[in-house]
Amino acid sequence: MQNPIEKAEGRLGILLPGMGAVATTLIAGVAAVKKGLAQPVGSLTQMGNIRLGKRTENRYPKIKDFVPLAELDEIVFGGWDLYSDNVFEAAMKAKVLEPMLLHAVREELEAIKPMKAVFDKHYVPNLNGTHVKEERTKADLAKCLMDDIENFKEANDCSRVVVVWSGSTERYHEISEVHQTIEAFEEGLQNNDPAIAPSMIYAYAAIKLGVPFMNGAPNLTCDIPALIELAKETGTPIGGKDFKTGQTLMKTILAPGLAARSLGIKGWFSSNILGNRDGYVLDHPDNFKTKEVSKLSVLEDILQPDMNPELYGEIYHKVRINYYPPHGDNKESWDNIDIFGWLGYSMQIKINFLCRDSILAAPIVLDLALFSDLAKRAGMSGIQEWLSFYFKSPQTAPGLRPEHDIFKQLIKLQNTLRHLMGEDLITHLGLDYYQDLAEVM
Amino acid sequence: MQNPIEKAEGRLGILLPGMGAVATTLIAGVAAVKKGLAQPVGSLTQMGNIRLGKRTENRYPKIKDFVPLAELDEIVFGGWDLYSDNVFEAAMKAKVLEPMLLHAVREELEAIKPMKAVFDKHYVPNLNGTHVKEERTKADLAKCLMDDIENFKEANDCSRVVVVWSGSTERYHEISEVHQTIEAFEEGLQNNDPAIAPSMIYAYAAIKLGVPFMNGAPNLTCDIPALIELAKETGTPIGGKDFKTGQTLMKTILAPGLAARSLGIKGWFSSNILGNRDGYVLDHPDNFKTKEVSKLSVLEDILQPDMNPELYGEIYHKVRINYYPPHGDNKESWDNIDIFGWLGYSMQIKINFLCRDSILAAPIVLDLALFSDLAKRAGMSGIQEWLSFYFKSPQTAPGLRPEHDIFKQLIKLQNTLRHLMGEDLITHLGLDYYQDLAEVM
Amino acid sequence: MQNPIEKAEGRLGILLPGMGAVATTLIAGVAAVKKGLAQPVGSLTQMGNIRLGKRTENRYPKIKDFVPLAELDEIVFGGWDLYSDNVFEAAMKAKVLEPMLLHAVREELEAIKPMKAVFDKHYVPNLNGTHVKEERTKADLAKCLMDDIENFKEANDCSRVVVVWSGSTERYHEISEVHQTIEAFEEGLQNNDPAIAPSMIYAYAAIKLGVPFMNGAPNLTCDIPALIELAKETGTPIGGKDFKTGQTLMKTILAPGLAARSLGIKGWFSSNILGNRDGYVLDHPDNFKTKEVSKLSVLEDILQPDMNPELYGEIYHKVRINYYPPHGDNKESWDNIDIFGWLGYSMQIKINFLCRDSILAAPIVLDLALFSDLAKRAGMSGIQEWLSFYFKSPQTAPGLRPEHDIFKQLIKLQNTLRHLMGEDLITHLGLDYYQDLAEVM
Amino acid sequence: MQNPIEKAEGRLGILLPGMGAVATTLIAGVAAVKKGLAQPVGSLTQMGNIRLGKRTENRYPKIKDFVPLAELDEIVFGGWDLYSDNVFEAAMKAKVLEPMLLHAVREELEAIKPMKAVFDKHYVPNLNGTHVKEERTKADLAKCLMDDIENFKEANDCSRVVVVWSGSTERYHEISEVHQTIEAFEEGLQNNDPAIAPSMIYAYAAIKLGVPFMNGAPNLTCDIPALIELAKETGTPIGGKDFKTGQTLMKTILAPGLAARSLGIKGWFSSNILGNRDGYVLDHPDNFKTKEVSKLSVLEDILQPDMNPELYGEIYHKVRINYYPPHGDNKESWDNIDIFGWLGYSMQIKINFLCRDSILAAPIVLDLALFSDLAKRAGMSGIQEWLSFYFKSPQTAPGLRPEHDIFKQLIKLQNTLRHLMGEDLITHLGLDYYQDLAEVM
Repeated sequence: MQNPIEKAEGRLGILLPGMGAVATTLIAGVAAVKKGLAQPVGSLTQMGNIRLGKRTENRYPKIKDFVPLAELDEIVFGGWDLYSDNVFEAAMKAKVLEPMLLHAVREELEAIKPMKAVFDKHYVPNLNGTHVKEERTKADLAKCLMDDIENFKEANDCSRVVVVWSGSTERYHEISEVHQTIEAFEEGLQNNDPAIAPSMIYAYAAIKLGVPFMNGAPNLTCDIPALIELAKETGTPIGGKDFKTGQTLMKTILAPGLAARSLGIKGWFSSNILGNRDGYVLDHPDNFKTKEVSKLSVLEDILQPDMNPELYGEIYHKVRINYYPPHGDNKESWDNIDIFGWLGYSMQIKINFLCRDSILAAPIVLDLALFSDLAKRAGMSGIQEWLSFYFKSPQTAPGLRPEHDIFKQLIKLQNTLRHLMGEDLITHLGLDYYQDLAEVM
Repeated sequence: MQNPIEKAEGRLGILLPGMGAVATTLIAGVAAVKKGLAQPVGSLTQMGNIRLGKRTENRYPKIKDFVPLAELDEIVFGGWDLYSDNVFEAAMKAKVLEPMLLHAVREELEAIKPMKAVFDKHYVPNLNGTHVKEERTKADLAKCLMDDIENFKEANDCSRVVVVWSGSTERYHEISEVHQTIEAFEEGLQNNDPAIAPSMIYAYAAIKLGVPFMNGAPNLTCDIPALIELAKETGTPIGGKDFKTGQTLMKTILAPGLAARSLGIKGWFSSNILGNRDGYVLDHPDNFKTKEVSKLSVLEDILQPDMNPELYGEIYHKVRINYYPPHGDNKESWDNIDIFGWLGYSMQIKINFLCRDSILAAPIVLDLALFSDLAKRAGMSGIQEWLSFYFKSPQTAPGLRPEHDIFKQLIKLQNTLRHLMGEDLITHLGLDYYQDLAEVM
Repeated sequence: MQNPIEKAEGRLGILLPGMGAVATTLIAGVAAVKKGLAQPVGSLTQMGNIRLGKRTENRYPKIKDFVPLAELDEIVFGGWDLYSDNVFEAAMKAKVLEPMLLHAVREELEAIKPMKAVFDKHYVPNLNGTHVKEERTKADLAKCLMDDIENFKEANDCSRVVVVWSGSTERYHEISEVHQTIEAFEEGLQNNDPAIAPSMIYAYAAIKLGVPFMNGAPNLTCDIPALIELAKETGTPIGGKDFKTGQTLMKTILAPGLAARSLGIKGWFSSNILGNRDGYVLDHPDNFKTKEVSKLSVLEDILQPDMNPELYGEIYHKVRINYYPPHGDNKESWDNIDIFGWLGYSMQIKINFLCRDSILAAPIVLDLALFSDLAKRAGMSGIQEWLSFYFKSPQTAPGLRPEHDIFKQLIKLQNTLRHLMGEDLITHLGLDYYQDLAEVM
Repeated sequence: MQNPIEKAEGRLGILLPGMGAVATTLIAGVAAVKKGLAQPVGSLTQMGNIRLGKRTENRYPKIKDFVPLAELDEIVFGGWDLYSDNVFEAAMKAKVLEPMLLHAVREELEAIKPMKAVFDKHYVPNLNGTHVKEERTKADLAKCLMDDIENFKEANDCSRVVVVWSGSTERYHEISEVHQTIEAFEEGLQNNDPAIAPSMIYAYAAIKLGVPFMNGAPNLTCDIPALIELAKETGTPIGGKDFKTGQTLMKTILAPGLAARSLGIKGWFSSNILGNRDGYVLDHPDNFKTKEVSKLSVLEDILQPDMNPELYGEIYHKVRINYYPPHGDNKESWDNIDIFGWLGYSMQIKINFLCRDSILAAPIVLDLALFSDLAKRAGMSGIQEWLSFYFKSPQTAPGLRPEHDIFKQLIKLQNTLRHLMGEDLITHLGLDYYQDLAEVM
C-alpha cells in the first residue's frame, strides 16, 4: 500500500510555450467554463467517470471526484510566443472560437500576454518570430526561461507550476551525442550546439526546476537520455509526444478493433487537409518529416506484423498532410483502409472526419497539466507511461515497445488511478456473475 | 485452481440451421483452408494470438496453440434448410465466393445436403419454404430435430456436436408466459403455441440433448427463461444473439473510442444497403423490427447516458436497412456521427464500410462452434458471457447489463482463456517497468 | 422578330404561400443584399452571366443587364402562413441564418406578417395550423385569397404581383375528374370537393387574376388541365414543380455526364437526412410518396432506358428521406451509384453533399419570381418550359417528355433569353474558328 | 452544303505507342466484343445515340448508324512498347481484366507483339526500357517509325492507319525555339535536340505521313507550332491532350453544374490513389508536374473567375496523386469541394470515385481512333476541337480558350456530326412546342 497523495493546495500555474490556436482555445475555454457559459467536453479529468469495484456495485464516480486534482478555479495561465499578441488577439486571429464567445471572456484573455519566446528559424523555416529572446548562448536562454517560470510563480501566487509544450512542430532531427548525458547537454547549451532545439531548452528549464513537462508536438524535446536522466534526478514527471487528435485518434481506435477480429490489412492511406498555422508549418518537408514519423509508427505497434505476417506483413501505410487554407482550423481527414477477411476476400473502409484540431487538442492540454501535477504530488517521476492515452507517439522506458492501442492505454490510465487510490484493478473477467460456473471452477 | 480441460478427441459435428450465404461460405471456406487454398482470416481461433505474462516476456502464442480446440481436420458439417439445394448449389446461388474457388471444393460441398427445415411462414413472411418438415405438433418437430442430431452424430462418427443458428431473422415478438418455465414451454410445444418460433424448437432440441447452441440472429431463440433453465439442467453452453458484423462491429469499435475521450454525441445515423436473401427478409417491417432492436441497443450500453447526460443524454440514434439488389451480398453501410467537443463545438464523422456480409460472418460461426465446444469440455454451462465479443446483442445473466464495448469484450474473452489455462490475468497497469516508481509506491 | 419586352416599371409584389425556412431565408437575404451586407449567391438573375455572339467577341453581360428584370429595390414581399409569427420570428425559429444577420434586418422582417393560410390537415397530417382561414366553401377560400392579393397590391403600391408556392409538400393524390376542366374545377370549389388541395386554391386564385404562379413543391397544384387551360385564358405564366436543390440537383448534373460517356448504370441509391419542418412533414408516408414520385422521375428521362437498354435497362433506383433532428436545416445527402464501363466492369461513385436546404432554395424563388414576371411582360402565357432549370419535375406540354438534364435546361433558358432579345442562338459548333476547315466544307 | 464523306472501305490499322494497361485493355476488349463476350460500354461510337430533328420526331439513331465509321471487324491493332511482352502477357501483368476473359481471347492477343519503342529515360526517369530502338539521331528514329507504320499497313492490308499515344506521361517541359517551325524541328531531329521528346518523334512520323495522331497523355507532343503547321500541310487531323477519365471527368461534369446555378466555390481539393505503372511514373515530381498542369487548368476555364470574381475569384485548387500499390489499376479519387450559396453560406460536397483507370480510358482510345479516321475522310485537317470531349486539356486554335465544360464539348461534338451529315443543329430552344407562344412571337 502506498502513501496517500498530497492534496492539491494553492494555485496551479499552467505555462504554455506556443500560444497559438490550441493554447488560446484552452485558455478561453477554461474562462468560459468558469463562467458557466460552456462545458469542458473532451476532458477526461472534467467530464469522465471511472468504474470502481464490481459491475453490480454501480460505482462510477467522476474522475475529478475520485483523485485529488487541481480545481479549475485554482488555475492560472501563462506562456511564451513569438508574436506579442495578447491571448484575446491571438484567439481572434486563430478563428477557432466564435467572436461572441471570445468577447464574453475578453477581459480575462487580454490580461494574459505572452513572454518572449526562444525561437530558431532553422527549426521552423515557415515562421518569422518578432517577439523573441536575444541571448548570447543557449545556456543563457535556458536561464531566462527559468527566471520566467520563477517570476510567474511568484507574481501569480502559485504553489505549483507545470509546462505543456503547445508550440509548432520542429524540423526533423535525430538523437546525437549532445543529447546523451546531462553533462554533454549542459555543455552543448554553453556552446550553442545546433542540435539543441528550442523545445529542448524549454524542457531543460522546466525539468531543472522540478516542474512537470509534457510535450504536445512530435519533436524529440524531452525524449532524449539527458533529459530523462535529469527528470529522475529532480523528481520530475515528463511525457510526450504529439497530442493524439483527429486522424491518429481514429486510427488507434479502429486498428485495434480490426486486429481484435483477426481481419487482415493490406493498405491504409491517410490524407489530411488543414489551413491553420500548424498546416502552414507542416507544408515544409523537414517539419512534415517529424510529423510523418510520429504518425506512421502507430499501426506497426498495434498490428505487430512480425507476429501476424499473414495478416499485417504486407501493409502499405501512407500519410499525407496538405495545406488547404479554405478549411482554416477545421482539419479534415480522409482515410481509405483496404482490409481482407475470410479466405482473403477484400473489403474497404472509408472514414471522413470533419474535425476541429484545436477543439480536440485543448482538453488534452488541460488533462495533461492536471495529471502531471497529480503525478508530481504522488511522488512519481520520469516518464509517465500511463499518460500514453494522450499521445501519438508515447514516450516509454528504453527498450519497451510503446502501447498505441487507445483501449489498452485507457485501461492503463484507469488502473493507474485505481492503483494510486488503493482500489482493485479491473480485468473484465466477470465469471463470478455466473454462479454455476463459479462452482465448477 | 481448476481442473484441466478435457482434450478434444474425436470428430466434432457442426450443425447449421439455415444453410444460406453464411453457412455455405463457412463450409466452402473450411474445405478450401484444409486444401491450403486460402487462409481462415477473421477467425480468432485460427489466426489470433494472445499475450501471456508480462510484455517483456514476449509470449504471444496462437490461441489454437494455447487452448485445446478441435482441429479443422476433425470437423464435419451438416444442417437444415428450407430449400433442398446441396451446399455447392446453394453457394453458387449465394454469389459470395468466386465460382473458381467453389469448383475447387465442389465434391466436398455436393456431398452435404440439408435436412428438411422446421419453417413457419408467419415468422418469415418474405420466404417460401419447399423443403420443410410436416408434423402434427411442435413437440413432434422437436423430436424430429433431436433424431436428426443423433443420426448425424452416429452417421458421421462424431464424438461431439454443436449447433449454430445461421438462419433468417424472425418476426419481432416479445417474451410471454409460454417462455417462462421448462414446463410451460414443453406444454406449448405440445399445444402448438404460436409464440414458440422455429428457432426456439431448434434451440430446445439441441439443449435438451446437451448440445451447445449459439444463436446468430437477433431472434429471442434461446434467450428465454425456459431454455436458460434447461441449459443449466443439461449442462449446456448457450449464447447469442446476432452475429456482430459490418456496421455494428464498427459501432462497437468507434463508440468506446469516443467515450474514452469524453467526446459528446448528438446523433448517429446508420444506413445500410444490401441485396442478399437477408436483405430481402429484412425488407419486411416485422422482421426489420427484430433487427432494429438488436442494433439500437448497442450505443446505450456503451455510452451510459444516465451517467453522462451532458455528453450522451440527447443522442438521436437511427438505423435504416435498405434492400438494394445491385450490391448482392456486398453489404455497404454509411454512418454519419455528429459529435461535439470542447465547449460544445460540433464535428462530424462519416464512415463508409464496403463490406461483405458473409465473409465477416463465416469465421464467427467457426469460432463460436469451437469455443462453445471448448466450454462444454471445460464444464461450463448456461450463458457464455465471455463470447459477447461475437454478438450484437449479447445474452447475459438476468439483471446484468450486457457489455457492448468490443475491447472490454475482447479482454473478457482473453482473460477467460487465461483463467481457464491458469495464466495471470492482464490489467495493463505496467508501473513495474518504471523502476523508480516501484520504489516510491 | 418579336416585339420588345415592356420595361419593368413600378414595384413588384412577391407573395409566398408558406413563410417557413425558405421564404424567410429569401426575404431576410434580399433585405441583407439591399443593405450591402451579403451577396445574392446562387441566383442566376443576380449573379449570372450569359454569353452572346461568338467566343471571340467576348460578350458576357450579367443576365440582369441583358434582360429587363425587376430590380431588388422594387420588390415587396408578402405571403400566407398557418402560424402567425412575423418573418423575423419565423426566421429565428427556422435557424437557417445566423441571429446576428437577422438582427441586422430585424425591423424590415418584423414588418412582414403573414396573412391567414388556407390549410387542410388531411393534406399535411404532421402539421397543426393555428392561423387559418375559416370559410364555408373552397370557392369562398379562393375568393378570400384573391382579395388578399388585390389588397396587398394596392396597399403596397405594386404595379405587378407574382405568387411562388413555398409551402409544405401535400399528401400524394392523382389527377381526377374535378381537375379536368375549368368548369368541373369551379364546381368542385363550390362543392368542397376533397380532391382540391389547398395549393390548388392558391394557384386558382392567382391564375384567375392573371398573376404568374410558380410551384416549388412536388404537389400537383397547377399541373392539372383545368388550371393550364385557365392560364391560357387569362394570359398567365405558370410553372412547376418542386424546387431542384440538393440531391436532385446533383443527380441532374451527374447523370447527364455519365450518359454523355455511354457509361452504364446498375443502381443508384439516394439517402437523405434532414431535421427541419420539411423533414418532419415528409416523415409521413403519404407526403413522402409525393416527393418520391418527383425524385424518382429524374433518372428515367435523362437516361432513356428504352433507347439504351444495355446501359440503363436494369437500373435500380431508390430514394430515402430520413427525419434526423440533429441536422436541422442542414440537409445532407449520400448517394451510392453503381456504374459499369468497358466490357461491363463495375465502378462506384459515392457523393456526400453537406448542403443547406433553404440556402439553395431561396435564390430559386427569387429567380422564378423575376423570370415569371418577365414572361408576363413578354406576353408569354401557360407553361414556361424554359424554367425547367429550376424544377425537379418540370411541367411540360401534354405528351411532351420533360427535360431533366440540367445542361439542356440551361441552354434552353439561355437560348430563350437570347431569342427574346433578338440575339443569335448558340450551338457550340465553332468550326469556323478553324479556318482551313471552313474552306474544306 | 458539304460533300458527302467517303465511305470507310478496307481495314483500319490502329497503332498505339505504349502498350500497357490502357492499350491491352482496349485490344482485349475489342477481341471480346467481336466474339460476343462483352459490350463496348463507355464508347460513344459503339453505344451512343444522337438526337436528330425535333423532340417529337423521335429520331435517336446510334451514332455508328448515323456517320460512316470503321466497323470493329475491320480494325487491326499494333504498336510499340519498351518491353517486349506480347499483348497477352502485358495484359496479364496489367491486372485490369480477369484472367478468364483474357484466356478467352488469348490467341488473338498473343499474335500482337510490340515493335521496339523510341525511349529516353530523361523523360520518364522511373522506367527502364529493354525493347528500344537504337539510332544515331532522332531523325533516324523518326525514319524508323515511318517505316514501321508503312510496313504495318502493308503487312496487315490496311487502307488507312491512325496513331493514338497511350504511353506514359513525360517530364514537364515548355515550348522552346526548336518547336516553333517545321524547319527548326527537323533540324532539331538531326541534331538530337534534347527538347524533342520521344512522343514528338512519334507524332512527327505519323503527321508527316498524313496519318491522324491523337495524344492521350498530358505531354506537349503535337501541341507545338511546328507540328500543327505540318498537320495542315499534310492534311492530317491531330488532337489532344490527356484522356479525360476519373477525377477530371467528374470535375468537368460537376463544375459546370455548380456554375450553372451561380454557386460560389472557395476551394477544391482533389486527391488520388492508384497503384499501376502510371501511378509509379507519376510518383516522380517532374512527371507529376506535367499532369498537374493539365489537371489544374480545367476549373479556371469552366468557372471564368475574371468574369465572376465574387464567385470564383478566390478559389484554392489543389490536386494530389499518390502512388498506392494495394489498389493496382483501381484508381480512386476523393474530392472535397467547398462551395457557398445564398448570402455566402458555406456547404461541402465530397466525392469518392472508385474507378478503374484503364476501363475508362480504353473506349476513349477507340472513339478517338474512329473519329480521327472519320475526320481524315471528311477532309478535316489540323486541330480537331470537336474532340475536346475526350481530353483533360483540349488542344485549340492559338488564342482560343479551350472549352472544358463536358456538356458544351458534347454539344460541339454532336453538332459537328449533325453538320457533317447535313442535319439541323440543335439549340434546345423548343418554344414552338408551346403553340400560344409561337403565336405571340
